[in-house]
Amino acid sequence: MQKKELFVVKIGGNVIDDDAVLDRFLDDFCEIEQAKILVHGGGKIATRIAEKLGFEAVMVDGRRVTDENMLQVVTMVYGGLVNKNIVAKLQARKCNAIGLTGADGGVILSEKRPVAAVDYGFVGDVKKVDAKVLSTFIETNLSPVMAPLTFDNNGTMLNTNADTIASEVAVAMAENYQVSLIYCFELNGVLQSIEQPDSVIPLISSANIEVLKNESVLSKGMIPKVDNAMSAVRKGVEKVHICHASHILPISKKVQKGTIVKA
Amino acid sequence: MQKKELFVVKIGGNVIDDDAVLDRFLDDFCEIEQAKILVHGGGKIATRIAEKLGFEAVMVDGRRVTDENMLQVVTMVYGGLVNKNIVAKLQARKCNAIGLTGADGGVILSEKRPVAAVDYGFVGDVKKVDAKVLSTFIETNLSPVMAPLTFDNNGTMLNTNADTIASEVAVAMAENYQVSLIYCFELNGVLQSIEQPDSVIPLISSANIEVLKNESVLSKGMIPKVDNAMSAVRKGVEKVHICHASHILPISKKVQKGTIVKA
Repeated sequence: MQKKELFVVKIGGNVIDDDAVLDRFLDDFCEIEQAKILVHGGGKIATRIAEKLGFEAVMVDGRRVTDENMLQVVTMVYGGLVNKNIVAKLQARKCNAIGLTGADGGVILSEKRPVAAVDYGFVGDVKKVDAKVLSTFIETNLSPVMAPLTFDNNGTMLNTNADTIASEVAVAMAENYQVSLIYCFELNGVLQSIEQPDSVIPLISSANIEVLKNESVLSKGMIPKVDNAMSAVRKGVEKVHICHASHILPISKKVQKGTIVKA
Repeated sequence: MQKKELFVVKIGGNVIDDDAVLDRFLDDFCEIEQAKILVHGGGKIATRIAEKLGFEAVMVDGRRVTDENMLQVVTMVYGGLVNKNIVAKLQARKCNAIGLTGADGGVILSEKRPVAAVDYGFVGDVKKVDAKVLSTFIETNLSPVMAPLTFDNNGTMLNTNADTIASEVAVAMAENYQVSLIYCFELNGVLQSIEQPDSVIPLISSANIEVLKNESVLSKGMIPKVDNAMSAVRKGVEKVHICHASHILPISKKVQKGTIVKA
């Protein structure tokens, strides 16, 4: 039997921080006819609220550390403000959304990252996604909206990267669904040349990924995203789209947009 | 066929604001063997965070008004911080909790309170509880943990009183479950005399409610709670318990504690 299609769509700060862009994106998301899960990042608002509360950002080697104060802020902002506003906006569009952190229904268990060279604080590395609970929601016609937060087994919430949440969820759901993972951002796809917005590389696969890396076509910032995508398809996700936030609806209708990463 | 038992338990600030009290309460809540829903209030933390963010509480006739800034704070604090910390603590106790606002799964639709003598701002009066979605969660062995937030059909979250959420949910679930609603607070029940902590009135029913009111046995603050409870039992809830937060487990085992309100 053909597996049912499922889209896992990840949006980042560039969509969340701009009301007009977010509204347009949510219009499109609601029109995707297939089963769907939205994963959102945090946006700049967490930093703004942390500053207002007088919490200083703790950085180590240029990376943000989630100390106890920052954990409170991201739990409030990602799990409360950002997540619930998206859910309310989707409900207004007749999409029956349900906001979730990893703790809700125990859908994403993680463990606190071990302290090595850097102590990242309350950051969680994903241990297990409960695809069964997520499937129950989807089969009840609910669309999960997932915040970049997980939980450990000791009663603590943890901060987890939204790209990772999206790929882990996509991989876990691939056993029972034909999963397309979409990473939305502000560009039209993975570009041959960053100066040329339309120089989209249409397909990245095992056949050309090493060449693209070696020829330095992939910009430094793009390599982890592409590696992450390739890892997801190697673990069972049908394809990963890296595309502009305004292109999710045509993609759901099988119109080629952006970059496709396939095995 | 006998309907399945369901407990709807409401806790307020006195439980949420004290970590040790909350932990003991959650230990007990997890041990309730029947199906269960937890409804929580806000606690003092929303006020503290609003102050830190420089938002002044807007009061009219001694009642708090939810202006746009305050709506952001309660969405963050009730829907994010308080709700997710309770969910993570329940998960650590092997209770598969799922945190919900009214917007999630569209479980509690409300409408913004019309502006009359007072404009309460972004406050929602409950219009409809979707008992079907809540039942799906319960039948999947999930325990809903509900924040005092609802949504309208225009994409806006709304602030709704937690006592009201608890009674509306209890009434809606009564069609398919034998529902006991428990209001926990810091007293042992409805008292004959506020100076005597053990002067608990064991039963309030249609037979004695008017007498208690007329003889001024019920303190002014207790009347709305008792009226709310009586209204719930008249709409199908089997009984309402008004009791100390440490008494929910014996109540679930049919040990008489606190005040019972029955039709």
